Amino acid sequence: MRGGLPINRRAVFKLRQVGFATLGWVKIKILLCACVALTLLAVANRNRDGSSSLMGWTGDVASLDLSSSPRGRYAIVMNTWKRYDLLRKSISHYATCPRLDSIHIVWSEPDPPSDSLKRFLNYLLQLNSRKGQQVELIFDINKEDSLNNRFKEIKDLKTDAIFSIDDDVIFPCSSVEFAFTVWQSAPDTMVGYVPRMHWLDQKKGKDKYIYGGWWSVWWTGSYSMILSKAAFLHKKYLKLYTDEMPASIKEYITTNRNCEDIAMSFLVANATGAPPIWVKGKIFEIGSTGISSLGGHSERRTECINKFVAEFGRMPLVPTSMKAVDSRNAWFW
Amino acid sequence: MRGGLPINRRAVFKLRQVGFATLGWVKIKILLCACVALTLLAVANRNRDGSSSLMGWTGDVASLDLSSSPRGRYAIVMNTWKRYDLLRKSISHYATCPRLDSIHIVWSEPDPPSDSLKRFLNYLLQLNSRKGQQVELIFDINKEDSLNNRFKEIKDLKTDAIFSIDDDVIFPCSSVEFAFTVWQSAPDTMVGYVPRMHWLDQKKGKDKYIYGGWWSVWWTGSYSMILSKAAFLHKKYLKLYTDEMPASIKEYITTNRNCEDIAMSFLVANATGAPPIWVKGKIFEIGSTGISSLGGHSERRTECINKFVAEFGRMPLVPTSMKAVDSRNAWFW
Repeated sequence: MRGGLPINRRAVFKLRQVGFATLGWVKIKILLCACVALTLLAVANRNRDGSSSLMGWTGDVASLDLSSSPRGRYAIVMNTWKRYDLLRKSISHYATCPRLDSIHIVWSEPDPPSDSLKRFLNYLLQLNSRKGQQVELIFDINKEDSLNNRFKEIKDLKTDAIFSIDDDVIFPCSSVEFAFTVWQSAPDTMVGYVPRMHWLDQKKGKDKYIYGGWWSVWWTGSYSMILSKAAFLHKKYLKLYTDEMPASIKEYITTNRNCEDIAMSFLVANATGAPPIWVKGKIFEIGSTGISSLGGHSERRTECINKFVAEFGRMPLVPTSMKAVDSRNAWFW
Repeated sequence: MRGGLPINRRAVFKLRQVGFATLGWVKIKILLCACVALTLLAVANRNRDGSSSLMGWTGDVASLDLSSSPRGRYAIVMNTWKRYDLLRKSISHYATCPRLDSIHIVWSEPDPPSDSLKRFLNYLLQLNSRKGQQVELIFDINKEDSLNNRFKEIKDLKTDAIFSIDDDVIFPCSSVEFAFTVWQSAPDTMVGYVPRMHWLDQKKGKDKYIYGGWWSVWWTGSYSMILSKAAFLHKKYLKLYTDEMPASIKEYITTNRNCEDIAMSFLVANATGAPPIWVKGKIFEIGSTGISSLGGHSERRTECINKFVAEFGRMPLVPTSMKAVDSRNAWFW
């Protein structure tokens, strides 16, 4: 069933499904004519308040208010390491995002966070409190310095959704909101901004893989992992990681200070048998260093993948080429 | 963590997140240079079999074989009504799609399907049998002629996924496969090709809505329903529709011969509290008539929405603007 405007249905459907790249000139002309006609209609249909409407659509919609339910809000779990300036910048930004319920800072340093740091961060959250409600700030203090700490189960977490994020990347709140909405439709998989891929190592044969970095994803359009440096996932996977992840993998991650994100991708794919979801979003780096910029990064990641495949007894990752985009920013398709 | 190619990380990330529409000339130049460089690399890295590879990536990947599990295949549930030529065309097409397990034809005509029709359709499926496995064809015969029949629970269904489809629309198998993969990542929501929206009726005030057809979705980029004329959904929703849908709504649908798809959208949104997922796909209409081409279609759909809101006691639909696209077809972003 389609919208009931008295226009040729075939034309509408042709318009609907063509991609801009594949448009013939005739279709482009039809499309442009339609745009012009619609724009004129919109201008001709101004409401008293001056907002533009089209045939009665003003974009106003009463959406279900889930902000009070566990599904309606999310918690940030931020991994940090002795970069207090970055931490301050990140928190001051994310504190302004709507639907954020609490911020958990994974703290693995020998010394506890200073009182001045705590005071400053709490002051930031107080400044951004809405309707008397303030985002809760919790430092999850760990004795051991291990990358597994970022996936430790969090008791009494109020939300199902976790936004796992590093302290050196900033996403506009609009991007975070968009990814959160996508996650709400797919709460069992990982939803995020940084896709990676596993490739068969043809030289080494069956069950040997190569880690595919950003350029391989960009080139092929395929990915099978979403890195936990910027991803939404269900809190149940923290418990699963804490209780079920093989000790040998956890030890490997602690020793090598790498690949906890690949391990989480394995865990989720193993549980769902489905691929993650890559969301198109703007990323701003505020840090200057990262272990991925060190030499031999790809080789170490490749080693992790093959180690984990051996431990899992199979390759659980499922490749896909789906990208979640905001259709409000895409008119031609 | 990022791919380990020795290139400026900031440049990579800038490239990664810019949309073509917002690209400045400098970025476009960087992007084009990167494209040229990568193309040259690809050409320079030809395998013996002639397939292009880039820095060792050949696009070969061992994906998890789920084709034998309930999650790995899907069943088509096709609604039809005295259009045997369309039925033959549709079945002959979908019979060629991989991962299709069975086809259920919802039959609500007074006379049962003719032997010649059954013979022809089974012959088609036999022609397309793979590895000795033939797609199963089942006619679900109904005594009553009602649009509710398309959502009757199907006993002993082998797959979790149902591809609900009308007999007058054709999607290339590649599009169906893509949507199925998206559904595997979001099995609790509806995933499909035909989005629709509900808008607040400003003239009539709170809790009064207007049905938003295709043009309103195209104009605003927002939607809250995916029509069951072409959508994947979990089989559990057939049982939920059969057992839990208010009788008054079912009667309304039978009497008015309309809006069963809106009712299913209400049911799924009410269960998940989340929006559906709109997948970009090519649609080919092979039919020439449909109730949506009749006069007063929008008014009747608007009436349905307001009737269902009254029955549900609230508006369960959740709007979104997410579109699932195939990143293999999108290089500029």
